[in-house]
Amino acid sequence: MVATLLSFSIMAQTNDAEVIKSIYDEALTESPGYENLRYLTKVIGHRLAGSPQAAAAVDYTRQLMESHGFDTVYLQPVMVPHWVRGEKEQLRMISSYAGTQELSVTALGNSIGTGNAGISAQVVEVQNFEELEKLGKKNIEGKIVFFNRAFDYTKINTFRAYGGAVDQRGAGASEAAKYGAVAVVVRSMASQIDDIPHTGSLRYQDGIKQIPAVAVSTLDANLLSTVLKEDQQLKVYVRTTSRMEEMEPSFNVIGQITGSEKPDEYIVIGGHLDSWDVGEGAHDDGGGCIQSIEVLRSFKALGIKPKHSLRAVMFMNEENGLKGGQEYAKVALEKNEKHILAMESDRGVFTPRGFTIQDPDMLKQVQGWAPLFAPYEIYEFIPGGGGSDIGPLKNQNTKMVGFLPDSHRYFKLHHTAADVFETVDKREMEMGAATMTALIYLLDKYGF
Amino acid sequence: MVATLLSFSIMAQTNDAEVIKSIYDEALTESPGYENLRYLTKVIGHRLAGSPQAAAAVDYTRQLMESHGFDTVYLQPVMVPHWVRGEKEQLRMISSYAGTQELSVTALGNSIGTGNAGISAQVVEVQNFEELEKLGKKNIEGKIVFFNRAFDYTKINTFRAYGGAVDQRGAGASEAAKYGAVAVVVRSMASQIDDIPHTGSLRYQDGIKQIPAVAVSTLDANLLSTVLKEDQQLKVYVRTTSRMEEMEPSFNVIGQITGSEKPDEYIVIGGHLDSWDVGEGAHDDGGGCIQSIEVLRSFKALGIKPKHSLRAVMFMNEENGLKGGQEYAKVALEKNEKHILAMESDRGVFTPRGFTIQDPDMLKQVQGWAPLFAPYEIYEFIPGGGGSDIGPLKNQNTKMVGFLPDSHRYFKLHHTAADVFETVDKREMEMGAATMTALIYLLDKYGF
Repeated sequence: MVATLLSFSIMAQTNDAEVIKSIYDEALTESPGYENLRYLTKVIGHRLAGSPQAAAAVDYTRQLMESHGFDTVYLQPVMVPHWVRGEKEQLRMISSYAGTQELSVTALGNSIGTGNAGISAQVVEVQNFEELEKLGKKNIEGKIVFFNRAFDYTKINTFRAYGGAVDQRGAGASEAAKYGAVAVVVRSMASQIDDIPHTGSLRYQDGIKQIPAVAVSTLDANLLSTVLKEDQQLKVYVRTTSRMEEMEPSFNVIGQITGSEKPDEYIVIGGHLDSWDVGEGAHDDGGGCIQSIEVLRSFKALGIKPKHSLRAVMFMNEENGLKGGQEYAKVALEKNEKHILAMESDRGVFTPRGFTIQDPDMLKQVQGWAPLFAPYEIYEFIPGGGGSDIGPLKNQNTKMVGFLPDSHRYFKLHHTAADVFETVDKREMEMGAATMTALIYLLDKYGF
Repeated sequence: MVATLLSFSIMAQTNDAEVIKSIYDEALTESPGYENLRYLTKVIGHRLAGSPQAAAAVDYTRQLMESHGFDTVYLQPVMVPHWVRGEKEQLRMISSYAGTQELSVTALGNSIGTGNAGISAQVVEVQNFEELEKLGKKNIEGKIVFFNRAFDYTKINTFRAYGGAVDQRGAGASEAAKYGAVAVVVRSMASQIDDIPHTGSLRYQDGIKQIPAVAVSTLDANLLSTVLKEDQQLKVYVRTTSRMEEMEPSFNVIGQITGSEKPDEYIVIGGHLDSWDVGEGAHDDGGGCIQSIEVLRSFKALGIKPKHSLRAVMFMNEENGLKGGQEYAKVALEKNEKHILAMESDRGVFTPRGFTIQDPDMLKQVQGWAPLFAPYEIYEFIPGGGGSDIGPLKNQNTKMVGFLPDSHRYFKLHHTAADVFETVDKREMEMGAATMTALIYLLDKYGF
């Protein structure tokens, strides 16, 4: 009996190894994904929620999934915020010691504008909210707060460095406003010193006065900090005409292959279709959207019939509202759709390393499949979350998996004009899609 | 006794983990390596053996290692071939079916020229030397042979795809000349379809007539092949004025930290300082040279005193002669210098994956240290060679280790105008240098 079980297990393993090899082979030789990403990024371009390009991306990915012959492709309506950057921002350092100099700047997403005249004020540098509290109203009122805490470069996965700095961007404006600040300048969330400013969303706290917020490049953040040490009377002039407009109708785009055994149990694979309004949203997250479509396309191309229903979901508005992810989860609950698994690709489409897996039992199960992934240089199966867009499903017993690519190059282009198609490597992106497909194949086949 | 041994082992492991963390921390926060690579690539530029830039690179890396305060820095004279590309090459497709079109071309290194008038002839496409033999003299004589075997994209490590195609470039000219061919056109050794031609060395066989050889981009190789199917009378015109000149004096550049316990036993860490005469030789192999210097600099910066003598060696002329590697091994033998270990970085400076290790016992030993490397996402300790430059040491009982970075992006820029500084990621390069340092630290400390 033991021998029989063993030989069955070895046969299953051998067969799975063959199927997984066919998944990688097909992705590396036949995938149209890279060309599709070229269209999404170079022809359509960046795709902020509420923008005409976001609407074009909805239409393009719907057509794309229809052209792949998925069983169902449909749009799910969702209202999204429509933030507008306005005119090119200005940030000017005015110092009696170092002269006047324009700094490299971008408005933070969701920020209000300064008004047409801009704002001039003295600058107070802080590293964190504790320093802000210590300085208090008497030192902050009427001034511009400069949040300058840098990434910790010694974190091997750069998302940990991001996690250790991003509170300044997300909450800095409201925290500073509590002490009477008139605007904030935030050091860019970047893993290196350069002159590229990184945008990204802020959240205004209810009941706190809204003040404008901009990000400055790491190079100019260092400059500002250096000059401030010599010239504590230093002022900056900041001007941005960014504004929030009325909510706009938009859509999540959903493609489905219906399951052969359990069609009413859903496995979601997704990314977000919107991007910031700079660059092309190639790594963040056009690539993740295309990889999600590729998972379903691979199943079809290889004739693998999933037991459960697979859905590729292009979520709208992850960057500055998460309305798409929230709406998807809300509708799933209303329709009583049982979502057993959700996987997100939203960490860039660099060379794949593995997955973050939230459920400890699933983590163990997947670690048991490690020998199936080793031939593809995939070794990381570690605890961690799935992703922002699938997060709202968490109260529906949905197990969460996050695709984990190599992180070293991500935070030099994240939310910047540098996140363009040319930074995406074709093989790396294909390897990632195949790795996602392989894990979905195993989880769909064996259950969890 | 067992308990004592165990606790010693755990303590040693803990201490090693701390030292290794300090190596990565220092590399990711303090390393000047990326700026040094910028100088080598953007200021000096490409560095073909025998060129003035190669001489400048010798002088620069000597000064650099002196500035780091290594115990000894010296130049080792070596005579190198001096190949000259000459005027911009031409490859023109002349077809009654598809018209006349210029193709994207580069002369192969060490190739002779066509003469000023160029060569026009009919084209015969083959995939391999067996096809060539079958066609024989009657079908080949007076014609231009077009070697068009592509990379196998399904090989996960792209060096395997390269290994499966590169005989066409290295030996194709002489093989075709045996049947009376007048020139050869070789499909570029590339992992994707694009219009960038890849150069690289050929070796003429003794006693076989030398004929000119050029590489065509993969895009134009596909075009040529497509047209050839319709128009078997298709001719191409090829012109190159490349030529081999007299041997030139040059140098290997050697920096040493002398060992504290076994100064007469040497550990070499090296890359090659020469590059092709296109692009900037950033990944191939400026980055590997700088990483090798960084290993020694890290030891000094962290106050780690190696037991054995460590040498960073910048080998000259890997690309089209290997004279530097040969000379280094010859001198080591003459001086009776005991070289116990050699590590090479010559696969690009992409995100690190691990090492190839030639000796089975050393492989097992290093695999035992896997837990020390896992925090840095390093998992690949696999059988394999060290590198071309250190290869000539193999008869001196020297154990060979090759640094193994991720390979997906390498063969779209290898030996091309695209191998420039901007394609090198600072963190990836630093992670690689730290990984090399960590392994050298362990091997030096524990022996093998």
